[in-house]
Amino acid sequence: MRLLAIDLGGTKLAAATFTEHGVVSTRDSVLLNGRKGRQVGKLITDLVTEQLSFAEQQAEPVVAIAVSVPGISNVKNNMVWAPNIPEWEAYPLLREIEAVGGGIPVTIESDRSCYILGEVWQGAAKGCQDAIYLSVGTGIGAGILAGGQILRGANDIAGAIGWLALRPPYQDRYKNHGHFEYYTSGEGIVRLCRELLHARPDYKGVLRSKDPSVLSTQKVFAAFKADDEIAVQVFKQCVEYWGMAVANLVSLFNPEKIIMGGGVFGPAIPLIPEIYKEAKKWGQPISTDLFVLAGSALGADAGLYGAGYAALKNFQRIQH
Amino acid sequence: MRLLAIDLGGTKLAAATFTEHGVVSTRDSVLLNGRKGRQVGKLITDLVTEQLSFAEQQAEPVVAIAVSVPGISNVKNNMVWAPNIPEWEAYPLLREIEAVGGGIPVTIESDRSCYILGEVWQGAAKGCQDAIYLSVGTGIGAGILAGGQILRGANDIAGAIGWLALRPPYQDRYKNHGHFEYYTSGEGIVRLCRELLHARPDYKGVLRSKDPSVLSTQKVFAAFKADDEIAVQVFKQCVEYWGMAVANLVSLFNPEKIIMGGGVFGPAIPLIPEIYKEAKKWGQPISTDLFVLAGSALGADAGLYGAGYAALKNFQRIQH
Repeated sequence: MRLLAIDLGGTKLAAATFTEHGVVSTRDSVLLNGRKGRQVGKLITDLVTEQLSFAEQQAEPVVAIAVSVPGISNVKNNMVWAPNIPEWEAYPLLREIEAVGGGIPVTIESDRSCYILGEVWQGAAKGCQDAIYLSVGTGIGAGILAGGQILRGANDIAGAIGWLALRPPYQDRYKNHGHFEYYTSGEGIVRLCRELLHARPDYKGVLRSKDPSVLSTQKVFAAFKADDEIAVQVFKQCVEYWGMAVANLVSLFNPEKIIMGGGVFGPAIPLIPEIYKEAKKWGQPISTDLFVLAGSALGADAGLYGAGYAALKNFQRIQH
Repeated sequence: MRLLAIDLGGTKLAAATFTEHGVVSTRDSVLLNGRKGRQVGKLITDLVTEQLSFAEQQAEPVVAIAVSVPGISNVKNNMVWAPNIPEWEAYPLLREIEAVGGGIPVTIESDRSCYILGEVWQGAAKGCQDAIYLSVGTGIGAGILAGGQILRGANDIAGAIGWLALRPPYQDRYKNHGHFEYYTSGEGIVRLCRELLHARPDYKGVLRSKDPSVLSTQKVFAAFKADDEIAVQVFKQCVEYWGMAVANLVSLFNPEKIIMGGGVFGPAIPLIPEIYKEAKKWGQPISTDLFVLAGSALGADAGLYGAGYAALKNFQRIQH
């Protein structure tokens, strides 16, 4: 048997078939190349058709299909909302895949849910029942596994941790991102750097430029490696917020593990011991002593592995 | 059929039998009167024996028993930790009740879990699958229902929301309580008032006293009603923190309802609209638009009703 996993990103589509033990059997990927709306749906259903027929030829038929989507999978109306895919406000992806799936069970999960499922199946949280993936990239989100179940909330929008309130008073500029994301996402790091530069007119280092639009997350990380004083201040502030957010997750969820991932972790992985130290100050002391903070083991493949595990879990649920 | 619910508090023990529809059939309560360790266990098992035999006489036999405990019920080793009951670091309450229970299924839940179960069964969150009870009293804790299940965490200590980090930097004085509880629990309100009095030597109002130990939560509430400037400042700060905490719960859990309860709500109930307003600024906007913030409908009975519902749920689970 094979599990067909599909990971839809903002710019590319990846697919893999897995054995039930989490071993990759085949892999494929294709760029979206500006496709939108039904064109993206067509790309996915073509890929599904191709993968199903290939697996059939290999005499290893696919028993379940799952898709990781960059947004929200609404389990009540089976529609997908994906802000970075044009015309996917309420896209009937499940129906489209089922139409070509020949009766194979299909499930669709948000990317953040897939990240933690992937790490629990074959990554840094292997075997955990209570674990959280904190994804810090362009945006910030959390995939939360509680008692072996994905936390969805009443409208499938649980885990919106970018909106965490970590320092009063409220400022209008947090409005489109949430306070935590405003300062500590990839873009947030740049915003924080700009604020600090503005407050330090005397600073003449590498991050000062006549054109402030050239500032990037990568540049702030590079300056940090070179011990630039503003970059050091930026990450000191980020570590404090990341640590508080981790502590808040620990106190509320009492998880076995929290996994830091996304584009920023990545380069921020060496900061994990300091984030842990900050979290330990704030969190419920027993929970904080018992949890493990780790970097993602699967990196950019977390969503794909997570879709594989979502397919397996759905298959097992139906078998019972 | 009857469900036997027992609510163990720090100073008293309450019991009720419920019909499966949540109607109280009998009620009883007894003071702990300084009992500790096995004496408290004996009080509970005597009450169970008495209630079982009474129900038997009425030809309405008890089919399930549940106890709400003021602490943690560890489902892995079946021991109870209750910090306010002397010698209950790891108390074998389940075993003791089962020994007198004649084979009737017994379940033990933390008080905060029972609060939300009670409100979901017969109170302000009736019928919800995703709802949270924020209990603000001497301490602060949250009972969390997610997807119809109580959130327990890896070690049954989920919901320790008193430890929420809401304003950096960390201060050593938060160590024994957590930052959120340090300032906004019943005792926290007094602490916050003392800090503000210290910062305002010019203030000569009703909260100023030669003996600062006479300050109480009740006095701060009374001064607030009389528009005292320090008390107004205290609750302005509390509303900001309560609102941030509610927003953080909304962004993380996407619940249908959050119920404010405990000794402080109570007198702080009229502040709920302002807390909602503060939460609305910070939280994930769709989740915040969709959730309802309400005061407890069951007040001091929430734990008892919750134990009744825990008994019913356990009975139904076993029947299946």
